[in-house]
Amino acid sequence: MSVLTLKARAGADDVDALMREIGRQARAAARRMALVSGQQKDRGLRAAAAAIRAAAPAILEANRADLTEARAKDLPAATLDRLELTPARVEAIAAAVEAIAGLPDPVGRRLAAFERPNGLSIERIATPLGVVGVIFESRPNVTADAGALCLKAGNAAVLRAGSESLRSAAAIAAAMTEGLVAEGLPADAIQLVPTRDRAAVGAMLSGLDGCIDVIVPRGGKNLVARVQNEAKVPVFAHLEGICHVFVHAAADLAMARTIVRNSKLRRTGICGAAETLLVDRACASTHLAPLVLDLLEAGCAVRGDEATRAVDPRVTPASEADWRTEYLDAVIAVRVVEGLDAAIDHIETFGSHHTDAIVTHDTGAAERFLAEVDSAIVVHNASTQFADGGEFGFGAEIGIATGRMHARGPVGVEQLTTFKYRVHGSGQIRP
Amino acid sequence: MSVLTLKARAGADDVDALMREIGRQARAAARRMALVSGQQKDRGLRAAAAAIRAAAPAILEANRADLTEARAKDLPAATLDRLELTPARVEAIAAAVEAIAGLPDPVGRRLAAFERPNGLSIERIATPLGVVGVIFESRPNVTADAGALCLKAGNAAVLRAGSESLRSAAAIAAAMTEGLVAEGLPADAIQLVPTRDRAAVGAMLSGLDGCIDVIVPRGGKNLVARVQNEAKVPVFAHLEGICHVFVHAAADLAMARTIVRNSKLRRTGICGAAETLLVDRACASTHLAPLVLDLLEAGCAVRGDEATRAVDPRVTPASEADWRTEYLDAVIAVRVVEGLDAAIDHIETFGSHHTDAIVTHDTGAAERFLAEVDSAIVVHNASTQFADGGEFGFGAEIGIATGRMHARGPVGVEQLTTFKYRVHGSGQIRP
Repeated sequence: MSVLTLKARAGADDVDALMREIGRQARAAARRMALVSGQQKDRGLRAAAAAIRAAAPAILEANRADLTEARAKDLPAATLDRLELTPARVEAIAAAVEAIAGLPDPVGRRLAAFERPNGLSIERIATPLGVVGVIFESRPNVTADAGALCLKAGNAAVLRAGSESLRSAAAIAAAMTEGLVAEGLPADAIQLVPTRDRAAVGAMLSGLDGCIDVIVPRGGKNLVARVQNEAKVPVFAHLEGICHVFVHAAADLAMARTIVRNSKLRRTGICGAAETLLVDRACASTHLAPLVLDLLEAGCAVRGDEATRAVDPRVTPASEADWRTEYLDAVIAVRVVEGLDAAIDHIETFGSHHTDAIVTHDTGAAERFLAEVDSAIVVHNASTQFADGGEFGFGAEIGIATGRMHARGPVGVEQLTTFKYRVHGSGQIRP
Repeated sequence: MSVLTLKARAGADDVDALMREIGRQARAAARRMALVSGQQKDRGLRAAAAAIRAAAPAILEANRADLTEARAKDLPAATLDRLELTPARVEAIAAAVEAIAGLPDPVGRRLAAFERPNGLSIERIATPLGVVGVIFESRPNVTADAGALCLKAGNAAVLRAGSESLRSAAAIAAAMTEGLVAEGLPADAIQLVPTRDRAAVGAMLSGLDGCIDVIVPRGGKNLVARVQNEAKVPVFAHLEGICHVFVHAAADLAMARTIVRNSKLRRTGICGAAETLLVDRACASTHLAPLVLDLLEAGCAVRGDEATRAVDPRVTPASEADWRTEYLDAVIAVRVVEGLDAAIDHIETFGSHHTDAIVTHDTGAAERFLAEVDSAIVVHNASTQFADGGEFGFGAEIGIATGRMHARGPVGVEQLTTFKYRVHGSGQIRP
């Protein structure tokens, strides 16, 4: 969509009518996209990446306008940082689109095949989901990442950028569309909602008359909570990542120290960062102090139960609220628990079913933990920060989901597909 | 649950509080069920089947009371037939539960496994969905079928029977629970909602404070529409089965006649019954008349376009409404279309994404139809009436879903599971 189209559309009074039109266009584009070959999709994505590179000056100019307005509104420094593009960041956006082009085509995979005694041959074949609605906030790169992932899986995308990043997102979307169209893909395969009117979000959550099949929110907890509460279509998301590391009685201390530090502190702002450390009472006398002192010395605030506070005066008291808090910061809650069952019980009571790890050399204890902790990702003797589509080998992810349907854990291109059954007969009728 | 408990509970004024309690009990039961071995589940199901047989007199007595009340209310004959149990039907219910016990355990299957370059080994393992809410109408056997399927997949079930079948359903549920408990399974693994108050349905659709993971409606279109519109949790269902048979130019006439008759008339009341016949203009001069006369002679009413009406005066005019109608009766809409593209376009415009078939010996045309028709089940040279979990080899099904998430097509025990990622490390941290 050109910037001119964007302006003309943004003038429309009737946001609902605009959104319905976007929905119809997306559905039509999805029908075409579902039939495009993997090669053509990849050519389109590479052309989109080239067009982003070529449009870098226009993208950076649009971004400067967004930044000027954001500064005038005194938005927080973290928002400004997420919003800001540099030549290096634009290059990274283009490279990410090319990387998605290089992934295997997830559409058409034969997920299952079986013969029936009557000679019917039945296959389960991966097909695109249809139309994916993505609602995001200040990071303009989501335009390209999410759009490219949806398109790689044969879907059409309807992207709603945060109002502070609309100009930047529009410039990126316009470049991508130029590349896609040059390779014969539908101009509406990736549509950016061209208005800041918040009613557009409500329209997307209602499903646009059945024209949106799934919604992916990309942003903070408030956004995800609103989407989960209001969406009338399925949502791929996680509300929180209250991830735990449980250091079991049979944990090697050196391994536990490394895993706990990495799980908490490698990056504190990501959903796979650990928020609570549980230490088995049986090894607390040897393991608790080194684990806590490591964290304190690395600059992490520690909130602990009585046993943990006894380790060091810098440990402040933890209340029940701490067990339920996703700090997303250099803060950790620490609790000594009475063995494996108590650890599992704590995680099932206070966790968010995202990613939880056990450190132990007791295989039986590990197996029980992996079986009984009901989270999308359960980890034995490794960092919780591996909760990531790239680390899983999915190439890229649109997010991590904790729902129980379909997409669960990292949502990569395979998870942006569904399937159909293809039944091959030779005249069979049912008796 | 005993009949006494049932009565005591039904007296509760606060349906919401009752339903929340049922939800909490279901969640607790689901946590236990998720860890039960396949053998124990199967022993429980066999004991439940034996208990149903042993309780046949009580079940039949409860059913007589339901029938007496239903007759006094002048319910339609079809409802009375669905409601009525006989000794043979009770035996069939018990046998169906035993058949479900004999299926392979869907929990714990390794759906995928991959090694990462850093040595992490990641598995995707099937796990139970959690708590399944089933809302049904007059068929008491759904109590056993749905309960057993949910339980086989390691779930807890909350069953809401139609008010006309509540006594029958309660007697069956009580027997099943007796069998399950005797084998050490939780008494709340299968709970029947013990009140006729319609507020109970609304409570289930709200998800019972996060205690219901998915809803399966089993009944007519009004029930499914209400559930799809109001449910705040995922729904496995299809609203309609507007299934098509397209007789392509390259169809063998004898095969087409057999498949059309079977697709429409084998059973007219099931969701996989064909509702519309599309005939390619290119073969209409040879194929249309025999196909239409077959149907008329078999007692099927035919509503057709102009070309079809020219075949026989008994053909009445079809309007656009007919293309959108699921007759569930011996009625068919017939239209002559201009080739494969027009057939696909008709199906995408008027269909319900359930099951659609092409009859042709042109492999290329069949491949295009299977690729481009966006339905849960697409069929080449066979009857649409194969749209059934049993016919797919799933053993039994709780229904057929047309959604784009997770369960699509026949929903058997595998589709009543989700998965988790199990990550096995040896101390890996993320760089």
